[in-house]
Amino acid sequence: MNQTPAFAQTFRAIDVIRKKRDGGELARDEIAFLVDSYTRGDIPDYQVSAWLMAVVLRGMTRAETAALTDSMLHSGEVLDLSFLAAKKVDKHSTGGVGDKTSLVLAPLVAAAGLVVPMISGRGLGHTGGTLDKLEAIPGFNVNLSVAQFRRVLETCGCAMIGQTAEIAPADRKLYALRDVTATVESPYLICASIMSKKLAEGIDGLVLDVKTGSGAFMKNEKDAAFLAELMVETGERMGKRVVALITDMNQPLGCMIGNALEVVEVIEILRGEGPRDLRELCLELAGWMLHLGGIAETVEEGKHQSGKLIASRKALARFRQMVELQGGNPQAIDDPRTLPQAQHTMTLSSPKDGYVASMQCERVGTACVVLGGGRERKEDSVDPAVGIVLHKKVGDAVSAGKPLATIHYNSETRADSARQLLEASYQIDDSPPRETRPLIHQVIGRVSGKPGDKN
Amino acid sequence: MNQTPAFAQTFRAIDVIRKKRDGGELARDEIAFLVDSYTRGDIPDYQVSAWLMAVVLRGMTRAETAALTDSMLHSGEVLDLSFLAAKKVDKHSTGGVGDKTSLVLAPLVAAAGLVVPMISGRGLGHTGGTLDKLEAIPGFNVNLSVAQFRRVLETCGCAMIGQTAEIAPADRKLYALRDVTATVESPYLICASIMSKKLAEGIDGLVLDVKTGSGAFMKNEKDAAFLAELMVETGERMGKRVVALITDMNQPLGCMIGNALEVVEVIEILRGEGPRDLRELCLELAGWMLHLGGIAETVEEGKHQSGKLIASRKALARFRQMVELQGGNPQAIDDPRTLPQAQHTMTLSSPKDGYVASMQCERVGTACVVLGGGRERKEDSVDPAVGIVLHKKVGDAVSAGKPLATIHYNSETRADSARQLLEASYQIDDSPPRETRPLIHQVIGRVSGKPGDKN
Repeated sequence: MNQTPAFAQTFRAIDVIRKKRDGGELARDEIAFLVDSYTRGDIPDYQVSAWLMAVVLRGMTRAETAALTDSMLHSGEVLDLSFLAAKKVDKHSTGGVGDKTSLVLAPLVAAAGLVVPMISGRGLGHTGGTLDKLEAIPGFNVNLSVAQFRRVLETCGCAMIGQTAEIAPADRKLYALRDVTATVESPYLICASIMSKKLAEGIDGLVLDVKTGSGAFMKNEKDAAFLAELMVETGERMGKRVVALITDMNQPLGCMIGNALEVVEVIEILRGEGPRDLRELCLELAGWMLHLGGIAETVEEGKHQSGKLIASRKALARFRQMVELQGGNPQAIDDPRTLPQAQHTMTLSSPKDGYVASMQCERVGTACVVLGGGRERKEDSVDPAVGIVLHKKVGDAVSAGKPLATIHYNSETRADSARQLLEASYQIDDSPPRETRPLIHQVIGRVSGKPGDKN
Repeated sequence: MNQTPAFAQTFRAIDVIRKKRDGGELARDEIAFLVDSYTRGDIPDYQVSAWLMAVVLRGMTRAETAALTDSMLHSGEVLDLSFLAAKKVDKHSTGGVGDKTSLVLAPLVAAAGLVVPMISGRGLGHTGGTLDKLEAIPGFNVNLSVAQFRRVLETCGCAMIGQTAEIAPADRKLYALRDVTATVESPYLICASIMSKKLAEGIDGLVLDVKTGSGAFMKNEKDAAFLAELMVETGERMGKRVVALITDMNQPLGCMIGNALEVVEVIEILRGEGPRDLRELCLELAGWMLHLGGIAETVEEGKHQSGKLIASRKALARFRQMVELQGGNPQAIDDPRTLPQAQHTMTLSSPKDGYVASMQCERVGTACVVLGGGRERKEDSVDPAVGIVLHKKVGDAVSAGKPLATIHYNSETRADSARQLLEASYQIDDSPPRETRPLIHQVIGRVSGKPGDKN
């Protein structure tokens, strides 16, 4: 177990680990040394995992977090999209259940005249992933080369792909290590991981959707707000316009959970239909994206523009175009019944009369994973057809024997497990819940989004 | 990076890491799983280093510390010395400068009728190591097989060797990992490392000499006392009689520092000569060892017996016998001038009249390392001949131009660096220091050592 030879004159990994262990603030150079040397393979995993654990338990200052993000960002290629005149914006969600807003937002914001170069991830744990949802569309290719990605962006203003080997390779390596060393759960490390990948897209503005509640990774709002502030400040330190919305994940977003089912719901929204909560959040996020991109003076105006692009079917047309450009069958957008469908359905009925008081949202997500719609390990494949359609959500009146949800499944055993989880997720009370949670809890950022804010 | 296959039904390394990260108390089984799997190579370094860092920052309960010690102890062979009727006792020091008590104690306590199966280490950092000192005796072999070790013990009641591959292999592997991941400095890990190796000697009683002061690893007494209490309790939980003495290391012990020079001073002590502080500590430690071994009713009585064994030269004869049995030239004991000698000497003189107010003891140790008498890295070899002889210690009156110390050296450049360090270690004041520190600060343990304590 030797020290690294690189940077040997100036830094040694063990000194950087010790400094963080003892609660010291690392200099930009020390962080860059660690990230660069690790990415190159000059520092072994066992030193970096010790350092990661020290970061989890000692935390980082804002300056350290920005330095880590910057080092990870510059460990690989930063896209240069300056050949496109329009401003580039993106949205990132920390992950939830039934959250399909990305599929709505990319074409919607592109239709408004901005560029959305979206690099997304796959589902993990109880949450879904944008790439898995896109792949439910027959033929859709998320593995474009950077050159192909640029061509799609040039043609239709949006493109949606997976992380490439060129983008933030340090994050790829660090994440794999964090995943097996119980060092995932640190807001500083989460911030650097998210922001390094997003800023590598070469964007001007970023809207962060930080989920909180029983279906989110951050169960309580305080933790969510802390992460949100960290990400906003990190983005600002790097010269970007960033805003974070803390949004509710105490129940699934929309009514459909499962990859193909969620594409169906995306099409509904783009047709001006679909569930109210999902539509509302899409418009809010789009409003912010348009505002950060400088084409809406206020968020309200951005929402208004977005609403019009949905009503005119221009956003839907843009979605269809992107699907076609990325190899997907546009027929599936025209007729969602041609999307993958599960062989069987099963209805979950209400055990009694009353009202849905709450939902244990993580259980709903896990039920979908159990059906085969998500992955328990990275290497698992997903079944695009399975999933859950919710007929009743929090606040809704229910009657004994009447359907709460429908399970779409391909395996009887899996369906049984999913049904149990789903059953346990519904809390039915005699009276309606006293208060309903707002969809948007807080907005964090220096960009106010109100009239007169043109910064 | 996969999880371990072993124990897979019951435990996963990541869960054990996470539990410690979150401040939980690990069960005996969880610790055993981690130590056993790591020793076998079923858990990778990067998971264990993350766990080690979590232990450094979260700490361990007494039960966890004992469980860790026990797992490490049983990762290898535990010596069975039951063929020897006498009680087995040992002493361990946390390391200091000029600390050569082990070489005095092993033959002295053996001469009193107990068995001392001493497994020691090498010097590291600014401190010396027992094995390096023994190897200054021409021919002395510290690498005995377990069978040879038993034979020497049977013949003369004491034997002094290095750690073998069979003894606590978990410690060997964990220590190498700690050394490169900044996870050395944890009292819990230090305790488990020391106690697992010492208890593997198959002893009944153990005296711990925990050093505190400018030449010790634990600079302040509070840390030293904490470690001492931890080790005493861990030993007691494992059914051993253990006592810890917190002793002073604000200046070197005795007057000679350097491997061959220290052997010279050991012989002086065994001849009833030598410096007072070293003699006093040797008698105190021997008194405790005899008391724990049950052949002295009180520590005072043990000291008295030890004094007589020195006066009668029986302890010296025992040392000579051990040296001979371990392949060393007994001539070197009879005539210390035949021990390795440096080619040159250089005198450090006092810059003014006054009194030695204090010494920066770590600098003295480092001066000896710089001369080539210690090792900066594990793989370095040592020069047995070089070292330092102190003519003046704390409280002594000094005169301008008169010698403070003599440097024994083989390289002019190294001697210059050592002289500077030594010079900087002496603090000379006009008046004598107001208070002198006691040699023994505290005794920690449930064995009182006073009359009537026969437990």
